[in-house]
Amino acid sequence: MADEQVTAALLVIGDEILSGRTKDKNIGTVADFCADLGIDLKEVRVIGDEMQVIVDAVNTLRSSYGYLFTTGGIGPTHDDITADAIARAFGVELVINDEARRVLEERYGTVDVAPERLRMARVPVGGTLILNSVSGAPGFTIGNVHVMAGVPQVMQAMLEDLSGKLRTGRKWVSETVPCGVGESVVSAGLRAIQEAYPALKIGSYPHIGDRKVYAQLVIRGVDPEMVKKAAEEVRVLVDRLQNRHSVTI
Amino acid sequence: MADEQVTAALLVIGDEILSGRTKDKNIGTVADFCADLGIDLKEVRVIGDEMQVIVDAVNTLRSSYGYLFTTGGIGPTHDDITADAIARAFGVELVINDEARRVLEERYGTVDVAPERLRMARVPVGGTLILNSVSGAPGFTIGNVHVMAGVPQVMQAMLEDLSGKLRTGRKWVSETVPCGVGESVVSAGLRAIQEAYPALKIGSYPHIGDRKVYAQLVIRGVDPEMVKKAAEEVRVLVDRLQNRHSVTI
Repeated sequence: MADEQVTAALLVIGDEILSGRTKDKNIGTVADFCADLGIDLKEVRVIGDEMQVIVDAVNTLRSSYGYLFTTGGIGPTHDDITADAIARAFGVELVINDEARRVLEERYGTVDVAPERLRMARVPVGGTLILNSVSGAPGFTIGNVHVMAGVPQVMQAMLEDLSGKLRTGRKWVSETVPCGVGESVVSAGLRAIQEAYPALKIGSYPHIGDRKVYAQLVIRGVDPEMVKKAAEEVRVLVDRLQNRHSVTI
Repeated sequence: MADEQVTAALLVIGDEILSGRTKDKNIGTVADFCADLGIDLKEVRVIGDEMQVIVDAVNTLRSSYGYLFTTGGIGPTHDDITADAIARAFGVELVINDEARRVLEERYGTVDVAPERLRMARVPVGGTLILNSVSGAPGFTIGNVHVMAGVPQVMQAMLEDLSGKLRTGRKWVSETVPCGVGESVVSAGLRAIQEAYPALKIGSYPHIGDRKVYAQLVIRGVDPEMVKKAAEEVRVLVDRLQNRHSVTI
């Protein structure tokens, strides 16, 4: 099913990200994961552990995009309310899932699966498990929503489990041209090239710290030949300007 | 004006974050900045460089929260459309701001301020400048919206300029209790403490990699005495369980 456009959103759930206590690492990982599969990540939201806020965000995003990924809030403690919120968003019950219970029992033994740990076996009715090889406790998929853990290593293991199961789109390819003159110098020529290739996305990303490169010019699109051709034009533009201008931002 | 609740949202604007090409560093910085000032960061959104998407997000977020911070899209190239979008969101014109032009001329000289660089002097009517000591090009404030650059060093310089100008709220304080038993073991006791202190937020953040600490239990609130008291109860709970349980997740 390649060639269609597949869109996605990511919902990061957790007070600890908004308070600054934890620095998110999952946004970049999910962005790379989507890029690799040709899935167009269109939006990310970060929200706190509040029931109605999660329910509203889930319902908005799952109806707006092809997939919704969520991270965070599926552990065994009182502040882990994501599974409850997803069930409420879908209007279904949240129940102990037999397969999830079995997964936990295999990992921890039947005796050790205390009621509180069994919270992690609760899955909305209709959901299927997303397995993780790191901690055992599964995430789940319901409809077009994929519910994953917040701990980066566990989230990555869940993405592994998901990767073969998703529709993929046409992959974007990109070329990057380092630009040794300031953005203001290159911008008129760059705009002309963008206008000549409306199917491509040409971005300019300034950076600081390398005194020879002032911006990376990135040409992206689904047609590799077209990307190559436009990148060559950008390269010619940059070469011409570099020979003429002193370097300023 | 302390003691009131001041809320905020952050809007990260840029295709490069969603494509995975650039890993965002600004969310964590803005979260820390807000925490330091007692501003309650309630939501973060990441969106691409699309006019109507930016306009809609700006209007939604600026009416929902006390402040809206934005990062990205205020450089001199064709893909920098944040200033245009903000002007459209506020229904005002985008014009060359005299003070911004002066700032750029001081940095680059009058001759070197080419038309394309002057794009960076465009500010919606009614806006005031946010200065930055790093690259010179200013951001701006209009209404309750603070528009900043995407390059982390520049964004940080702009936060410096903003910090004295914002209303601040009651600061949250927090205590962290390292927990050497799994979350499932501590969760019942932790829930009871949370219920005894509804004014506090008690979070449990599992982590992997340190075989002696299985979670950080964080107690947050605006009343330092209450936080201290609850943290002591959590500490007692953890000590009791650590002496009794083998360590499992």
